[in-house]
Amino acid sequence: MPYRAPADEIRFILDKIVPIAPVAATERFAEATPDLIDAMLGEAARLCDEVVAPLNRPGDLTPARLENGVVRSTPGYAEAYAKIAEGGWIGTAAPVEYGGMGLPQTLNMAVQEMMSGACISLQLCPLLTQGQIEALEHHASDAIRDLYLPKLISGEWSGTMNLTEPQAGSDVGAVRTKAEPRGDGTYAITGQKIFITWGDCDFVGNVCHLVLARLPDAPAGTRGISLFMVPKLLLDADGNPGAANTLRVVSLEHKLGIHGSPTCVMAFEGATGWMVGEPHKGMAAMFTMMNNARLGVGMQGIGLAEAACQKAAEYARDRAQMGQILGHPDVRRMLATMRAETFAARAIGLACAVALDMARATGAKEWADRAAFLTPIAKAYGTDTGIRVAETGVQIHGGMGFIEETGAAQYYRDVRITAIYEGTNGIQAMDLVGRKLADGGDAAFRVLEEVETAAEATRATCPDLTEAVWSAAETLREATEWMLAQEPRDRFAGAVPYLRAFALVLGAHYHLKAALVGGARRALAEVFIRRILPQHTALLAEAREGAGALYALADGDLVGE
Amino acid sequence: MPYRAPADEIRFILDKIVPIAPVAATERFAEATPDLIDAMLGEAARLCDEVVAPLNRPGDLTPARLENGVVRSTPGYAEAYAKIAEGGWIGTAAPVEYGGMGLPQTLNMAVQEMMSGACISLQLCPLLTQGQIEALEHHASDAIRDLYLPKLISGEWSGTMNLTEPQAGSDVGAVRTKAEPRGDGTYAITGQKIFITWGDCDFVGNVCHLVLARLPDAPAGTRGISLFMVPKLLLDADGNPGAANTLRVVSLEHKLGIHGSPTCVMAFEGATGWMVGEPHKGMAAMFTMMNNARLGVGMQGIGLAEAACQKAAEYARDRAQMGQILGHPDVRRMLATMRAETFAARAIGLACAVALDMARATGAKEWADRAAFLTPIAKAYGTDTGIRVAETGVQIHGGMGFIEETGAAQYYRDVRITAIYEGTNGIQAMDLVGRKLADGGDAAFRVLEEVETAAEATRATCPDLTEAVWSAAETLREATEWMLAQEPRDRFAGAVPYLRAFALVLGAHYHLKAALVGGARRALAEVFIRRILPQHTALLAEAREGAGALYALADGDLVGE
Repeated sequence: MPYRAPADEIRFILDKIVPIAPVAATERFAEATPDLIDAMLGEAARLCDEVVAPLNRPGDLTPARLENGVVRSTPGYAEAYAKIAEGGWIGTAAPVEYGGMGLPQTLNMAVQEMMSGACISLQLCPLLTQGQIEALEHHASDAIRDLYLPKLISGEWSGTMNLTEPQAGSDVGAVRTKAEPRGDGTYAITGQKIFITWGDCDFVGNVCHLVLARLPDAPAGTRGISLFMVPKLLLDADGNPGAANTLRVVSLEHKLGIHGSPTCVMAFEGATGWMVGEPHKGMAAMFTMMNNARLGVGMQGIGLAEAACQKAAEYARDRAQMGQILGHPDVRRMLATMRAETFAARAIGLACAVALDMARATGAKEWADRAAFLTPIAKAYGTDTGIRVAETGVQIHGGMGFIEETGAAQYYRDVRITAIYEGTNGIQAMDLVGRKLADGGDAAFRVLEEVETAAEATRATCPDLTEAVWSAAETLREATEWMLAQEPRDRFAGAVPYLRAFALVLGAHYHLKAALVGGARRALAEVFIRRILPQHTALLAEAREGAGALYALADGDLVGE
Repeated sequence: MPYRAPADEIRFILDKIVPIAPVAATERFAEATPDLIDAMLGEAARLCDEVVAPLNRPGDLTPARLENGVVRSTPGYAEAYAKIAEGGWIGTAAPVEYGGMGLPQTLNMAVQEMMSGACISLQLCPLLTQGQIEALEHHASDAIRDLYLPKLISGEWSGTMNLTEPQAGSDVGAVRTKAEPRGDGTYAITGQKIFITWGDCDFVGNVCHLVLARLPDAPAGTRGISLFMVPKLLLDADGNPGAANTLRVVSLEHKLGIHGSPTCVMAFEGATGWMVGEPHKGMAAMFTMMNNARLGVGMQGIGLAEAACQKAAEYARDRAQMGQILGHPDVRRMLATMRAETFAARAIGLACAVALDMARATGAKEWADRAAFLTPIAKAYGTDTGIRVAETGVQIHGGMGFIEETGAAQYYRDVRITAIYEGTNGIQAMDLVGRKLADGGDAAFRVLEEVETAAEATRATCPDLTEAVWSAAETLREATEWMLAQEPRDRFAGAVPYLRAFALVLGAHYHLKAALVGGARRALAEVFIRRILPQHTALLAEAREGAGALYALADGDLVGE
């Protein structure tokens, strides 16, 4: 049975659990009526099922390759991409004045989830273009916007993000790529970038690189980084791609997964670039791009979790051995856990998207803070869930899971990158306990209040489950207060378990809402709240442990010397 | 920095944590003095570092392949295998009368751990031969033993296990392969087997297949299965390999990992076989083989955990970014967790091996029961630890972890199979709460008594850590009592978390012993007992949850229909 995009499940969540109605009630998103959302989800699901999903295995078997300096993509990708672009799915949330649909990110993120479950390697190409659209929309001059946005939004051109350099890793401040002003408004960009997803693409008319680089007089660190638009082909007077710029793909990486997505080493050799935004303010633009990309990556994790769930469930049902293995308690435990965590991660991801939309539509700081607070949780928990679920999916298949033809192993390989790129999950957790608690915990406590208020409303109908969620929220509140009183080192030592505990409490909150529907929803909520949520005590115990023992170990002890 | 086999760490455990001294004090293993153990560990470590480890990446890049029906192994494997055989490492624990060294399994398991950390794909070949040696030693006729054991022990020939069939998976009782008696004492074996590790091998003189098959009059299910020796080359009157038997490798699997190890689909086409043991009693012989193989697979998980630890620690130390990333609290947390769980898994694995040796040397039922009880824990926790540690190892590497050249991804891929073969970890957990608690919990309670007695001895010196371990043991005792009172379905629904909780309590017990040494040992014990052990409450809450909610979900809910 092939992958089926979970449009119904998303509809349920946007209807009952994380209502999209308030978004549609704003002036900005007045067009996004339930009927429209419904229709578009159906349309996108059909595209994912029929066009995108059939390319998932081919991308793994016939990866993109470099031929005379040009990327040759997996056969079939070009045609599928054309249909994605045609359907308007690259510009779903992009500004109407440049040809976008101007619809809520919530809808876009739901579509991105379905598309990554279908084929993450292909989906990465539009996802990165969307990030670039957003960065240009907020930071570029009118001239650059007018030249690039229409083509990016229509999908005629694609966009990339060029951050990482060989010596720098996650430390963006260490960027060495140079930008020399030529005196004519352009800059000569010179340097090497690594891990550039879809750094070249043979099914678009131009590849637009956003590149972080330093001006000659730039201060050290992240405050000396500027952002440049460096297209593969220079634009002629009519804005059409013409002469080749002096940049090239040096090589493609041989990766654990997402083989269909070319990961490039790029060389910029005095390439012509145009500055985007102010000098030395490149990081701000990058953060705009990364923040939404972070949620997008979280949705990728959820999409792969969904796909892995479907594959494992199908196998468990059809397995010849003694009829089927679905009747075994341990197989049921695994499948139910997969489903329960996928639901929780999806609800959290969509809640983050709704907050983003509300912030945009209303300009209210409270919504923006909520979105900022939920982003690292949505990214890290979404991708960790993708990894856990894909791993359990392999396990349910037994020996067949280890055989590549089965497909379960591909999800296990592909999803691994989502915990790493756009800021590792460790970096997400440090962002959460660092910057996102820097408001004295206001955003955190508001989320907890919401959880507790909702719990009061279910106490009569689901007393046991409610009590479990309420008491977990209280434990989390205490841990949050503890966090706020610590030095950074002790906070950071507990950041990852704290983030997961927060996600579990939020997930339990959404499951509790779903339990009110009864039936299978209630049973799944019981699985989550009674079998998974109890982890929060251990997680918060670890979160509050501080860094003491970690530093009582000498470096040599850790390295084994 | 290449892999270094952890001989010193193993010596420490066998000296202070899980003493091997009582084994050496038995008559049977009187030769295994501390000096001898020490020397042999050093010898084996050198072999692993210098000869075996350099073949790990080549096996991944140049997998075994099938050429005209014959397996061609990775270049270099033949030479390394010859040195393993020469050093006597295949027959370390094999009977002296057939050319083995007759040494404790504890030593053998330690060597196997080091060798799988060096190169699991190559190590699988001797590991399976060892399983066959054990099965023949206990179940074969003198004639078969005399013909095969000397050559298997010397490494001239290799051995395989042929259990799984395409339609059967983990359900061994569904075997359909037929064995027709020919009237001359031989049998014609016909059928197909899958997942046959090292089903052919181009660096040995003969490949000896132990095959599960049914006699014509066999009852259905596992009580109708017999075991046969079916060599690739038939032996002539002098016992030398001669004419080819009618069996062949149909194909090799394309797998997630362990590429250097050929996983074969085997066809037996009226192949000549000799019965091993009694008619219809093949499962008993298979279980002998599997029980030790289970511990061996647990040691593989530990070996890969060790290798992944070393690689990640080295990267964290040397990473150019801001000098190094070892100073970051979250990186320290990850590395310390990896080290702490690896220590726990290794101590449990070696404790199981010591119990096996004591059972063999003394014949005492109590030791045999202890070994049987610890085997599923050692297998599942050892391999789960391997998987977690390898995954965290990838994460520590950031983007580099996703690049195959780095090597961290290979551990992540290779180790995944260890949770599946020799009985999935779910099957191990069901064995634990099913058969291994069928004694009314005697074996379990004896282990818990040992934990609590040891805790009394450390209460004065490490009061906090001791209290944590003691109280976890009490919670585990209560959960064990709960388990004993349940129907199978409710037990099985909690089997996996119960097994992990048991492993954590045992791991904490061994860490507590290590804490008495002070310094880094104590700090690592703190990491385990204060940061990881708290998980036991959530695990045991899940273990005691029963199967209710899992069956309140209909099959269709799980499958998503």
